[in-house]
Amino acid sequence: MNVLWIMADQLRWDYLGCYGARHIKTPNIDRLASMGVRFNRAYVQSPICGPSRMSYYTGRYVRSHGSTWNGFPLRVGEPTIGEHLRETGVRCALVGKTHMIPDREGMSRLGIDPESVIGALVGECGFEVFVRDDGTNHSDYPGRHAEDYDTYLRARGMDGDNPWEEWANTAVGPDGEFRSGWLLENAGLPARVPKDHSETAWLTTRGIEFIEQQGETPWLCHLSYIKPHWPYLAPAPYHSIYSASDVPPPNRSDSEKRSCHPLMRAWMDMRVSKSFSRDEVRNAVAPTYMGLISELDDQLGRLFDYLEVTGRFNDTMVVFCSDHGDNLGDHWIGEKDLFYDCSARVPLIVFDPRKEADTSRGSVSEQLVEAIDLAPTFLEFFGGPEKPHIFEGRSLKPLLHDVDTEWRGFVFSEYDYATRESRREIGVDQRDARLVMVFDGRWKYIHVEGFRPMLFDLASDPGELIDLGEDPEHAGQVNRLKEIHFCWAREHHARITCSPDMVEAMTDDVEPPGIMIGYWNQDELEKDGYTVPGHIKTPSRGNSDQ
Amino acid sequence: MNVLWIMADQLRWDYLGCYGARHIKTPNIDRLASMGVRFNRAYVQSPICGPSRMSYYTGRYVRSHGSTWNGFPLRVGEPTIGEHLRETGVRCALVGKTHMIPDREGMSRLGIDPESVIGALVGECGFEVFVRDDGTNHSDYPGRHAEDYDTYLRARGMDGDNPWEEWANTAVGPDGEFRSGWLLENAGLPARVPKDHSETAWLTTRGIEFIEQQGETPWLCHLSYIKPHWPYLAPAPYHSIYSASDVPPPNRSDSEKRSCHPLMRAWMDMRVSKSFSRDEVRNAVAPTYMGLISELDDQLGRLFDYLEVTGRFNDTMVVFCSDHGDNLGDHWIGEKDLFYDCSARVPLIVFDPRKEADTSRGSVSEQLVEAIDLAPTFLEFFGGPEKPHIFEGRSLKPLLHDVDTEWRGFVFSEYDYATRESRREIGVDQRDARLVMVFDGRWKYIHVEGFRPMLFDLASDPGELIDLGEDPEHAGQVNRLKEIHFCWAREHHARITCSPDMVEAMTDDVEPPGIMIGYWNQDELEKDGYTVPGHIKTPSRGNSDQ
Repeated sequence: MNVLWIMADQLRWDYLGCYGARHIKTPNIDRLASMGVRFNRAYVQSPICGPSRMSYYTGRYVRSHGSTWNGFPLRVGEPTIGEHLRETGVRCALVGKTHMIPDREGMSRLGIDPESVIGALVGECGFEVFVRDDGTNHSDYPGRHAEDYDTYLRARGMDGDNPWEEWANTAVGPDGEFRSGWLLENAGLPARVPKDHSETAWLTTRGIEFIEQQGETPWLCHLSYIKPHWPYLAPAPYHSIYSASDVPPPNRSDSEKRSCHPLMRAWMDMRVSKSFSRDEVRNAVAPTYMGLISELDDQLGRLFDYLEVTGRFNDTMVVFCSDHGDNLGDHWIGEKDLFYDCSARVPLIVFDPRKEADTSRGSVSEQLVEAIDLAPTFLEFFGGPEKPHIFEGRSLKPLLHDVDTEWRGFVFSEYDYATRESRREIGVDQRDARLVMVFDGRWKYIHVEGFRPMLFDLASDPGELIDLGEDPEHAGQVNRLKEIHFCWAREHHARITCSPDMVEAMTDDVEPPGIMIGYWNQDELEKDGYTVPGHIKTPSRGNSDQ
Repeated sequence: MNVLWIMADQLRWDYLGCYGARHIKTPNIDRLASMGVRFNRAYVQSPICGPSRMSYYTGRYVRSHGSTWNGFPLRVGEPTIGEHLRETGVRCALVGKTHMIPDREGMSRLGIDPESVIGALVGECGFEVFVRDDGTNHSDYPGRHAEDYDTYLRARGMDGDNPWEEWANTAVGPDGEFRSGWLLENAGLPARVPKDHSETAWLTTRGIEFIEQQGETPWLCHLSYIKPHWPYLAPAPYHSIYSASDVPPPNRSDSEKRSCHPLMRAWMDMRVSKSFSRDEVRNAVAPTYMGLISELDDQLGRLFDYLEVTGRFNDTMVVFCSDHGDNLGDHWIGEKDLFYDCSARVPLIVFDPRKEADTSRGSVSEQLVEAIDLAPTFLEFFGGPEKPHIFEGRSLKPLLHDVDTEWRGFVFSEYDYATRESRREIGVDQRDARLVMVFDGRWKYIHVEGFRPMLFDLASDPGELIDLGEDPEHAGQVNRLKEIHFCWAREHHARITCSPDMVEAMTDDVEPPGIMIGYWNQDELEKDGYTVPGHIKTPSRGNSDQ
């Protein structure tokens, strides 16, 4: 049994056919959905690459693993899915992106050599690296991992100081001139790289190569795509299969601007938000974003055909998800960030090859699912232990096998905007730039440290256009959700060295062996089944006044 | 410059002369207080050995280091004061007790050999071991560290299967017979071991030996005594210098029993609580407890004389503290546990040899101080960095140097009773056996997960005999303190890999080098000081419809 865990980067759930999109076709992702369970209410633990992924890779909330922003190293000793799987005899390999930054200070404190076998795994958050590529392979990026794709391009005659920048991130203009993929006005132009050698095509090929090389040892392959994340540039023909007229209208209202929260005002005021709020930007970018998704879908078709032909669908769990969405000008903001459904809600499809999953094939689960559920799902799939003292997510198995179960009532997501300029704009200390989302399936509550909370009712306002956070009529909801936030914040989340079994055993034992507390005399001691140490030959009693 | 950090085990603050006790004399501890600052409102992070010490040794709350109970290993990678000091070129050595249990699973995950130099340090929570002895040296204790004291006793003719048990924990009865130190009825009898070779005397000697062996390298010596922790047995003459008539009346009221909280009822119902609630027990145990304190004080006199004679008081910070108190039947409970002042409040005296401390010598600080303040105090003393992203305590320097400063308004302490039988008695899940104390100098609020909180007003009720937790007139106080608890629970406490300077630098940089997000065209890019990649020779503009 194996797991192929596919992740897209910055992919919105509502840009997939199986999630109801009519403006884009994704037949291959839809095909996977028809074979498995499509989770319709899956949320990431942070709507930003690094922290979201660290939650996926540890099965733990951001408040617990502590890597709260891109580039914040994952602390050494934070257990990862790779470590859990290896204990169970499973290889856990990476093909693509993780956004992991090693905790070099912590490793040095523990004497872990980054060049050693274990050091390399720790530095890659538990993954054995088949390919590591975080995208945006500019040559001065710290910890750059672009060798593989660069070499690949060069071998095909696509040379230069930085082949990625010069081919994948450079477009060809109408007069044959080169244009930078960093400039949004160029989004509608084709990339210099031909589609067969784009990052998406290349990673698919590398994923297939990994699978082909595997023997008897069970494996998990994290095939982690870089797209449709910016730079928004697609190779022909994907640069032109959609146009501005295919793009749905942005989800935003004038009232959002008028009545908005200080944090939202600062966010709308960021350059990237203002940029994506312009129609010309959205109309240039969104078609290419959609083209990149179609390209990914086509490549997944190639991958799924390969799995089909080689019989891998019989023994391989195939998971498709995203690390977060893309606001694309909805709510007058750009990028990912914050907790609107366009960013914090993600596609999640799980194909489970086990017979027990036959009754759920092609079904849709409306349960509240979190990114942290995948790690325990994988460990369970491979027959590993439960580890509820480490994992804060839970195995999706009952949902995949259509078994009645008490499921959770709330999902949580976090956001640390300490490094954002908007933090300074509203005068918040870097320790306090904390947002927490609590969502119960209807009410989305957002705790904003130092400010009033936000509240959206997705039943009456599915577009999340009306912030009820200061509406006195909703004070009850605010208080209810605040209590749930508090409840969650109080939970054990660092007590990771003692399993529930160990705790129960210690409760049974009362005290460690040899320790006897609070006994007055031998009668009391013997009543509890203890004996005094053997060298005491002549115990006497009743001398209580001594 | 060096630090001698003395810790007593289970020592109440109100059993010291300098803290106002009239029933016991502690001239040597009082002498230290007259040379330094006596902190009158010092609280431990958990009123139980293991978690309290792990907070002392990491400078972090229990919710953060996760070692919530005795025997719960300290997770590998949790940074310790020993590691911080070594980075600053300081030796950090242990003479005595830590209650540390290594995280063997975590170490194995990271490939850390417990026998290696670093592995040994990690396994001893960062201390270089000169002597490790946790007391209660029964031979079947896991991870027993009794070799040193056993060897010491044997070399002086005190032999047997378990010299500690047979000499230090065995009393001699009126007819010369042996009596077990585990039985409280024997507390008034002298231990077999003579006072010059008791655990307290021996550890003092070993501490002096450590100091004598030091050269030029600055050092911190954690001289961590085992007493006056149970077993309550003292060598002559300390077994008899106090009697029942010297013991103050217990601090408890009948009304406590009548109106008490379900948790308190379960606690009072524990065998050890019922035992210590009996007058015969208290009258037998407390005089010996006091004798053990006097013995400790005498030994500290010997130690301080040594420091005086060798001039060490000129270059050595000397700290005296305790890991928690002892309820001794107050409030109808025994042992440590819970957050009454007899348990959660501790003595803390800091002698700072620096000239800047001259104005504060002999003074008393009423500021709210926490055990986690010591680690950053030590690091600062040795000129190390601040590390506020790791430490949750803060350096006491401004209080020691009598400098005006904004100090904290609240102390927090935690208690995980998952392994206590009382947890099962009140039907609480092991994940939810959580108590948190918030104390603001007057109001002591105790969050009891799953039950109503407790509240004490120490201004009108210094004995903490009246629980106002369900008094409607105090609902406002309860809510105020609950908010503070929530505020504290929300704080970053796992974000330990990024210093504030790193966060500010990232905020300055906006994005990592080479990444340019959300720019429409070259004009916008250049306005922000960016340039497009050099290989793009002929950028054109205004083709927004492409």
